[in-house]
Amino acid sequence: MPKVALVMGSKSDLGTVTPCIETLKAWGVEAEVRVLSAHRTPEAVHEFASGAIDRGVEVIIAAAGKAAHLGGVIAAFTTLPVIGIPINGSATAGFDSLLSTVQMPAGIPVATVAINGAENAALLAIQMLALKYPTLAEKLVAHKRGMAENVLKADAELQAELAAL
Amino acid sequence: MPKVALVMGSKSDLGTVTPCIETLKAWGVEAEVRVLSAHRTPEAVHEFASGAIDRGVEVIIAAAGKAAHLGGVIAAFTTLPVIGIPINGSATAGFDSLLSTVQMPAGIPVATVAINGAENAALLAIQMLALKYPTLAEKLVAHKRGMAENVLKADAELQAELAAL
Amino acid sequence: MPKVALVMGSKSDLGTVTPCIETLKAWGVEAEVRVLSAHRTPEAVHEFASGAIDRGVEVIIAAAGKAAHLGGVIAAFTTLPVIGIPINGSATAGFDSLLSTVQMPAGIPVATVAINGAENAALLAIQMLALKYPTLAEKLVAHKRGMAENVLKADAELQAELAAL
Amino acid sequence: MPKVALVMGSKSDLGTVTPCIETLKAWGVEAEVRVLSAHRTPEAVHEFASGAIDRGVEVIIAAAGKAAHLGGVIAAFTTLPVIGIPINGSATAGFDSLLSTVQMPAGIPVATVAINGAENAALLAIQMLALKYPTLAEKLVAHKRGMAENVLKADAELQAELAAL
Amino acid sequence: MPKVALVMGSKSDLGTVTPCIETLKAWGVEAEVRVLSAHRTPEAVHEFASGAIDRGVEVIIAAAGKAAHLGGVIAAFTTLPVIGIPINGSATAGFDSLLSTVQMPAGIPVATVAINGAENAALLAIQMLALKYPTLAEKLVAHKRGMAENVLKADAELQAELAAL
Amino acid sequence: MPKVALVMGSKSDLGTVTPCIETLKAWGVEAEVRVLSAHRTPEAVHEFASGAIDRGVEVIIAAAGKAAHLGGVIAAFTTLPVIGIPINGSATAGFDSLLSTVQMPAGIPVATVAINGAENAALLAIQMLALKYPTLAEKLVAHKRGMAENVLKADAELQAELAAL
Amino acid sequence: MPKVALVMGSKSDLGTVTPCIETLKAWGVEAEVRVLSAHRTPEAVHEFASGAIDRGVEVIIAAAGKAAHLGGVIAAFTTLPVIGIPINGSATAGFDSLLSTVQMPAGIPVATVAINGAENAALLAIQMLALKYPTLAEKLVAHKRGMAENVLKADAELQAELAAL
Amino acid sequence: MPKVALVMGSKSDLGTVTPCIETLKAWGVEAEVRVLSAHRTPEAVHEFASGAIDRGVEVIIAAAGKAAHLGGVIAAFTTLPVIGIPINGSATAGFDSLLSTVQMPAGIPVATVAINGAENAALLAIQMLALKYPTLAEKLVAHKRGMAENVLKADAELQAELAAL
Repeated sequence: MPKVALVMGSKSDLGTVTPCIETLKAWGVEAEVRVLSAHRTPEAVHEFASGAIDRGVEVIIAAAGKAAHLGGVIAAFTTLPVIGIPINGSATAGFDSLLSTVQMPAGIPVATVAINGAENAALLAIQMLALKYPTLAEKLVAHKRGMAENVLKADAELQAELAAL
Repeated sequence: MPKVALVMGSKSDLGTVTPCIETLKAWGVEAEVRVLSAHRTPEAVHEFASGAIDRGVEVIIAAAGKAAHLGGVIAAFTTLPVIGIPINGSATAGFDSLLSTVQMPAGIPVATVAINGAENAALLAIQMLALKYPTLAEKLVAHKRGMAENVLKADAELQAELAAL
Repeated sequence: MPKVALVMGSKSDLGTVTPCIETLKAWGVEAEVRVLSAHRTPEAVHEFASGAIDRGVEVIIAAAGKAAHLGGVIAAFTTLPVIGIPINGSATAGFDSLLSTVQMPAGIPVATVAINGAENAALLAIQMLALKYPTLAEKLVAHKRGMAENVLKADAELQAELAAL
Repeated sequence: MPKVALVMGSKSDLGTVTPCIETLKAWGVEAEVRVLSAHRTPEAVHEFASGAIDRGVEVIIAAAGKAAHLGGVIAAFTTLPVIGIPINGSATAGFDSLLSTVQMPAGIPVATVAINGAENAALLAIQMLALKYPTLAEKLVAHKRGMAENVLKADAELQAELAAL
Repeated sequence: MPKVALVMGSKSDLGTVTPCIETLKAWGVEAEVRVLSAHRTPEAVHEFASGAIDRGVEVIIAAAGKAAHLGGVIAAFTTLPVIGIPINGSATAGFDSLLSTVQMPAGIPVATVAINGAENAALLAIQMLALKYPTLAEKLVAHKRGMAENVLKADAELQAELAAL
Repeated sequence: MPKVALVMGSKSDLGTVTPCIETLKAWGVEAEVRVLSAHRTPEAVHEFASGAIDRGVEVIIAAAGKAAHLGGVIAAFTTLPVIGIPINGSATAGFDSLLSTVQMPAGIPVATVAINGAENAALLAIQMLALKYPTLAEKLVAHKRGMAENVLKADAELQAELAAL
Repeated sequence: MPKVALVMGSKSDLGTVTPCIETLKAWGVEAEVRVLSAHRTPEAVHEFASGAIDRGVEVIIAAAGKAAHLGGVIAAFTTLPVIGIPINGSATAGFDSLLSTVQMPAGIPVATVAINGAENAALLAIQMLALKYPTLAEKLVAHKRGMAENVLKADAELQAELAAL
Repeated sequence: MPKVALVMGSKSDLGTVTPCIETLKAWGVEAEVRVLSAHRTPEAVHEFASGAIDRGVEVIIAAAGKAAHLGGVIAAFTTLPVIGIPINGSATAGFDSLLSTVQMPAGIPVATVAINGAENAALLAIQMLALKYPTLAEKLVAHKRGMAENVLKADAELQAELAAL
C-alpha cells in the first residue's frame, strides 16, 4: 500500500489540511498524519524526517503558515520528495508562507502547491506514487475524466438555468 | 532508463534551464527537451502532453515566464506529475510567473519550485523517479552528503581565511 | 445580432460575472454563456475556442481566478479578441489572477479589465462590436451621457443634503 | 483603411512603443501617433479623444508610466475602445502603471495589456478591427500559424543542437 | 474665510470622507463638497478645476479609489495645491489607489495622504491655508497641544488601569 | 521672499534632491538645505523643526529612504506643512520608503509625492506658497503653459520625424 | 528584578500587545507600560527614551501601526536594545508597519518581530535579559521544553482522534 | 570577552556580512564566523546551535537569502537571542528573505534587521551584550554621539558647498 506522511505545523491547521487527508484516504493511500513544529520540536522533526524512508513513507507533505520553514526543514533531512502547502494565516496576504515555502535554495527543492492547496498536495503525491503503483495511474485517468464531467455537468445546468429565464 | 521531459516556453529560456538539463544528464536521466508555447503552439502542447506517457515520459518539467501558463496547460492534458519553473523575465519582480504557476485550482496541481529554480526542478523530478528507481534513491543519499561536505569545506576555508587575517 | 461568448472557469464565478451577462442582454447583444475550465476541460475549451468564429461569436470574455489561465488558453485557439476578467478569490490580494491574465507574452494579447470588472468586460466587448454595429456606437454615446447624468444627479443630491444640515 | 491612434505620455516612451507602431504599419493599419500628456496637456488630450471618431480613428492605444492616467482620461472622452500599455519606468516594479491602467471603475473600461506590451497592444487593436475588416481577420489566422511555425522551428533547431552535443 | 473644495469620485465614498468635511467645518474652513468622476464626468471635472480659483477655492482635496485618477486630473487643470486621498475599495490591498494617486509625473504633484486618510487631508489643507490665515496657524498650535494631551491622558488612564489590576 | 527648508536624511541623497533645490532657486524661493537624520541626530531634527517658523520657514520638505521616518518626525515638531519625498534606495522596490512616508496616522499628515519626486516636492511647496505670494501664483500659470508647450513641441517633432520616414 | 518598557502608539493597540504584557509578568519581568505617540507626543517619547536607562529599563519594546515610526524614534534616543512590533491595522496587508519598522538605516537597529508578534517581543526581550539574569536563562530552557511538549501532546491527541475515526 | 556567533547560509554571502564581522571586531567582541546551511547541513546547524551556550556564545546572528530558514532553525535549537539578516539575492525584491525571517510563529522569535543590514545586526548584538558588559554600554553612548557628529559634519560641509555656489 502506498504511504504518505502529512505534517502540519500546528493542530490549528487541521481544518485546512483535512481535504488532503480525505483525498489520500479516498484514493487508498495510507496517511501518517502528524503535528510537528519546525521551530518548537526540531528534534522530533529531525527524527520524523530521517526515519521516514524506514517507516515506508514515500512522499512527505508539509503544511505551515507565516515563516513556513517546515517543508524546507523536512527536506533537509530526507531524500524523499517533499510537498509544501503554504497556509494563509497572517497579515501579509499569504505572501509570507508562499515565499518561505517555494523559494528554496539549489539542492533542496520543496514542491509547492497553491496557498491552502491541501487537495492538490494529495493529488500531487498520488501522481508521484503513480510512477510506482500502476493502479493509482489508472485511477488518475478516471479522476481526470470525472473532473471534466463535473465541469461539463455544471455547464449543462447553467444552460438549462439560462434557458429557463 | 528513467525519462523526464523538459519544456521551455521560448528558446530564450534555454540559458536559465540549462542547469536542469545538465543535472538530469549527470544523474543518468533521459531528457526530452522541447521548445513549446502554451499560447503560440497550443496544439503541439496538447499533443506533447497527451502522448507523454506513451513516449515513456515519467515526469514533465515546464519552464515559463510572465503569465506562465505552460505548466498548468500541460497538467491539464496528462496525469503525470508536472513541475513548474517560474522564469523571471518581466517588470513585476517575478511575482507574475510565480503566481501564475503555483496558484493552480483544485484538481490540477503544478509542483512549483523557486523562481529560476532549474536545478531544483531536476532534483525534484529525480526524487519522484527515485520512488521507482532504487539507484536514484541511493544516488540522492550520496548527493545530499556531497552537498553537506561542500558547505563544510567552504566553512573550513573560511576559518582558514579568517585565521590568516 | 452581435454575439459575445462569456466563459467562466467555475460555476461558482456566476455571481461575479452576472453584471456582465445582464449588461450584454440590456444592450441587445446575444450572449453564449459557458462554464469551462482551462485545466479540467482543456479539450472542451479547445473545441469551444476553435469553433467560436463558426458559431458567429465576435468577442470572447473569459473570467477566472487564482492562476487564471482561461483567457490565455482561449486566446491561443482563436483570432477573436479575448477579454479577461481576473476573479478575486484567493489569499494573494487578487494579484495572482490579475498577473496571470494580463502578463501575456507577445503575440497573444488578452484585453484585461479590473479585478472582478464584469460590467466593464461587457462594455469593452460592446465598444469593440460598435466598430461594426453602428447602433451600438450610438447607444454608447447615450450610455456615456447617462453615466455623467447619474454622477451629476448624485452631486446634486449631495448638495441638497449638505444644505439641509 | 483601418485606423488606430497611438498616444504616448512622453516622447521618452517612443522606444518602448516602437514595436506597436511597426506592427500596425506591417499590418496595413494607418497609425496616428501622438505625444500627449494627461497631466500636462489635458486640453489637447480632451480635443484629441473627443475628435477621434470624426478623424476616422477606430481604436485608441495609450501608453504611459508611473501613475498612468492617460488611458483612463482618453476613455473618459470617447466611446471608442481604448487599449492601455502600462510602461515600466519607476521604482515600484511596474505595479504603479499596471494598477493605474487596469483598475478602472465600472463604466469606463481600459483594455490593458502586459507591462511594456507594445506589440500586443497593436495585435489587440487589429483583432478588434478584424471584426469589421475581413482582410485583417484572414491575416490574423496566417499570423497565428506563423507564430506556431516559428516556435516549432526553434524547437527543431534545439533538437539539432542537442543531438550535436 | 478660507475655502477648500473636496471632490469624491463617487457618492459611495461619502462615509470615508466625512471626517474630512467635519474637520474643515470644525476649523471654520468653508468647504465646497462635490461628487465628480474623472472618468464619467470629465468635462464637469475640467470646469470644476479650471474655475476653482475664480470661485475662491484655495486648496482642492480629491478622494478616489481603484485606478484613482481624480487627483491627477484635477491637478492637470489648476495651479492650486491638490491633496489626494486614496480610497481603499478594491481587491489589491489598497495599492492601486495609493500608487495611482502618489506616483505623479514631474510637473504635476498630488500631495498624497494615507489610504482613507480623510482627516489628515483636511489638516494638511489647513496647514497650507495657515500660511495665509494667521488664525489657522494659531489654532494648529493649540490642536497639536490637544493631540498630545489626549495621548498623555490615555497614558494616564492606562497607568490607572494597570495599577488597579 | 518665500522660504522653504529641505532636509535630506543623508548627504548621499543630494543627487536625488538636486532637482528640488534647483527648482526652488529657479522660482525665487529661498531654500534652507540641511542634512539631518531622524535617527542619528534626533535632537538636531527637533531643534530644526521646532524653530522653523521662527526662522521664517513656511514649508518643509523631507527626503529619506528605507524606513523613512524623517518627514513624520519633523511633522511631529511643527505645524508647518511637511512634504515627504520617499527615496528609492533599498531592496524592496521602493515600497518601504513610500509606505513609511505616506501612511501617517490621523493628526500628523505628511504630503507625499512620488518616489524620488524631488521636482514635484518643490512645485508642491510653491503651490502652497502661492496661496500667500501672488507672484508665485502667476508664475505657476505660466509654468503650466510652458509644460504644455513642451509636450506639444515634442509631439510636433515626432510628427516631423514620422513624416520623414 | 529585570525591567522592560513597552510603549504602544495608541491605546487602541492594547488588545494586540496584551500577550506581551502577560508574558513579561508571567516571567517575573517588571514592565513599564506606556501609551506614547512618536508623532503626537514627540517630546514625551524623547523624555521617555532618554531617561529609560536611568529608570532601570533594560530593553524597550515599541508597538505601532501604519507608518510605524515609534521603534525608530525611540532607538534614536537610547542605546538600549529596541524591539519593534509592527501592528497590522491598515489597508496595505501589514506591509506598511513591517517595512517602517524593520528597514532601519545603518547605525540604529530595531529588532523586529512578526506583525502583531506581541508574545515573541516579550520572549525576545527575555532572551536578551537572560544574558544578564541566569534565572531567566534557566526558565527559557524549561519554556522551550514546554513548547515542545505541547506540540507533542497535540500530536498525540491527533493520533487518538484519527484512530477513533 | 563578549562573544557572538555569525552564521551565513553560503560563503557567497561573505561580502554582504563583512560589515557585521568588522563591526564586531572594532567593538572588541569575539566573533565565531561560520558557513552553515539550514538545508544542506541541518545536523551541523543543530550541533552548532545546541552547543553555542557551552562554547560561550551569547548572541547568534544568522544571514540567509531566498526562503531564509537559517535564523528560525537556529532559534529552534537554542535559547540565546537570534538576530536574522535577510539577504537580498533573488527575483522577488527581497520580500522572500524578509518574510521568511521575520514572520516567526509565537514562541520562537528571530530579531530581524533590515534587508542586508549586516552592520545593524552587529550593533543590535552589541546592544544586547551591553546589558551585561558595562564597557559596551559606554561605547554605545560614544558611538551614538559619533554618528550624530558625522551627520552634523556632513551638514556643515553641505552648507559650505552651497555657500560656495
